Amino acid sequence: AGDPAAGESKIAACAACHGTDGQGTSPIYPNLAGQSAAYLESALKAYRAGERGGGMSSVMTPQAQALSDQDIADIAAYYASLTP
Amino acid sequence: AGDPAAGESKIAACAACHGTDGQGTSPIYPNLAGQSAAYLESALKAYRAGERGGGMSSVMTPQAQALSDQDIADIAAYYASLTP
Repeated sequence: AGDPAAGESKIAACAACHGTDGQGTSPIYPNLAGQSAAYLESALKAYRAGERGGGMSSVMTPQAQALSDQDIADIAAYYASLTP
Repeated sequence: AGDPAAGESKIAACAACHGTDGQGTSPIYPNLAGQSAAYLESALKAYRAGERGGGMSSVMTPQAQALSDQDIADIAAYYASLTP
């Protein structure tokens, strides 16, 4: 399972658009605070697999491809732990 | 622009998974309450175009293909208007 504390150390790239607080820094970037970890993992794995196109996928696909399964679980747990 | 009140009348299918309150009815379904309308529109249009695969796209693609641009704007405005 994901470790929110470990995830907090892995979100430098994520935070540029999604914030350290999980609030999108522009309306086109989704808020992640309090989102379910299961959904966040599913979305990151779909980007990593190159399945999830459209939207900001040209940014998200290479970012997700730099992440291991554990990284994804930790990052998802971190954002899920935040207050929306 | 989207009309939240009109959107409320168009979410019968959405609500089965995302709730009328924008809270996912299972962890695999993202919460939509308070999400930005710009992001929700982008995601629905990517599903409609068949660009957004993976995850629950086998459900979302046909649902989105039943929606006009105005429907998408209204539904996005409705969920964006809710408290997370």
